[in-house]
Amino acid sequence: MSGFVSFVGSGPGDPELLTLKAVDRLQRADAVLFDDLSSGPILDHAGPQADLVGVGKRAGRPSPKQDHVSRLLVEYAQTGQRVVRLKSGDSGVFGRLEEELTALKAAGIPYEIIPGVPSAIAAAAAAGIPLTRRLTARRVQFVTGHDVKGVLPEDLNMAALADAQASTVVFMGKGTFPLLAEALQAHGLPADTPALLAEDVSGPDQRITRTTVQALAQQLSAEKGSKPALILYGPLAEA
Amino acid sequence: MSGFVSFVGSGPGDPELLTLKAVDRLQRADAVLFDDLSSGPILDHAGPQADLVGVGKRAGRPSPKQDHVSRLLVEYAQTGQRVVRLKSGDSGVFGRLEEELTALKAAGIPYEIIPGVPSAIAAAAAAGIPLTRRLTARRVQFVTGHDVKGVLPEDLNMAALADAQASTVVFMGKGTFPLLAEALQAHGLPADTPALLAEDVSGPDQRITRTTVQALAQQLSAEKGSKPALILYGPLAEA
Repeated sequence: MSGFVSFVGSGPGDPELLTLKAVDRLQRADAVLFDDLSSGPILDHAGPQADLVGVGKRAGRPSPKQDHVSRLLVEYAQTGQRVVRLKSGDSGVFGRLEEELTALKAAGIPYEIIPGVPSAIAAAAAAGIPLTRRLTARRVQFVTGHDVKGVLPEDLNMAALADAQASTVVFMGKGTFPLLAEALQAHGLPADTPALLAEDVSGPDQRITRTTVQALAQQLSAEKGSKPALILYGPLAEA
Repeated sequence: MSGFVSFVGSGPGDPELLTLKAVDRLQRADAVLFDDLSSGPILDHAGPQADLVGVGKRAGRPSPKQDHVSRLLVEYAQTGQRVVRLKSGDSGVFGRLEEELTALKAAGIPYEIIPGVPSAIAAAAAAGIPLTRRLTARRVQFVTGHDVKGVLPEDLNMAALADAQASTVVFMGKGTFPLLAEALQAHGLPADTPALLAEDVSGPDQRITRTTVQALAQQLSAEKGSKPALILYGPLAEA
């Protein structure tokens, strides 16, 4: 008897940024496996019958291993339950979706993927910044600031990332941004390129700091906060 | 007496992929200015009091000039109305948001931006493809396949676009893909790189075609459909 898994992107954190389909799947779930960033009032949509299981991964804190999360997901589904796997933002964007899909496929468990509002998209909206612009930003890119070892990935495409004509969003990049900014400037990105630090996007403590690539690198060298944040840079001046 | 404009991303087309906040703004709107791709059942959320105004832009059909849309938006808001400017996907991603923000600012009209599920994100979800992968796809990029003149932009960053380690989504690129594919291959992207053609994403006629960069270029050289579609390429094999 095989259950069914709905991967559900919860959006950036504001419960009002859930999609109608996400709400529906939460309401009908027997179990919800959620990350820390997709918790709180979002889980209120789940019914009283639902098991709520935190499998939190959060920057700077120890968290369950990915293998363990995948195994748990399979185990819940194998009891025949309707499982919601709730991930912040969109599951397919830096959400380790690949590993969990692989585990479900190996176990022969059917699933669906409900897309969500990526946090990068919500950060730009909160800042009032169009990520694309007709003449100055015809490309948008999302990149991760740390690899599996928690350091700046070695094989970044710097020609792509140092392009001042693209809007770039760095996920999980606070710790490594000073290093990245140095490499960006070495590859020709002007030091005064506009940058934004977006913390707790769409949440109660949302803070958007407008700065430049160089100034942000200096700020983050001095400051060792572990609060999750996105970094945006590129042609970000307000319209 | 100044009104208020909510830029609302409607998501890719499936009415269930509206956010709760989008539904709320539609329900309270005095006027909704919508594009063709964000019409249909999505507009049923608007109340009977609301003016529904089509300002459709759709590939291959003549459409109102952008200046005209911006002027209309300002005029509606200046009558003191709550205006929803509904755009398909997310307003900030190839939605000409910059031009409309500029017009509102010039007229001193307050606004908010409600992010939506971008069509690129929904296409990947529909295809069961994680856009990022821990080892093989640490960068995602969205790019437009045509500039204001409707041709392939001349100044594309080919080093960024021909990177086989990134997942790329081309918006409005069906007509120019044969030319783009040629340039990608000249810059080293393997001809057999996986590609997807995603038509009517999340809609009743959704069709996802799995192919390769070279085969898709050949197909689109022969076929001159004007149906809107997204093209994805990169490390897109199923997990």
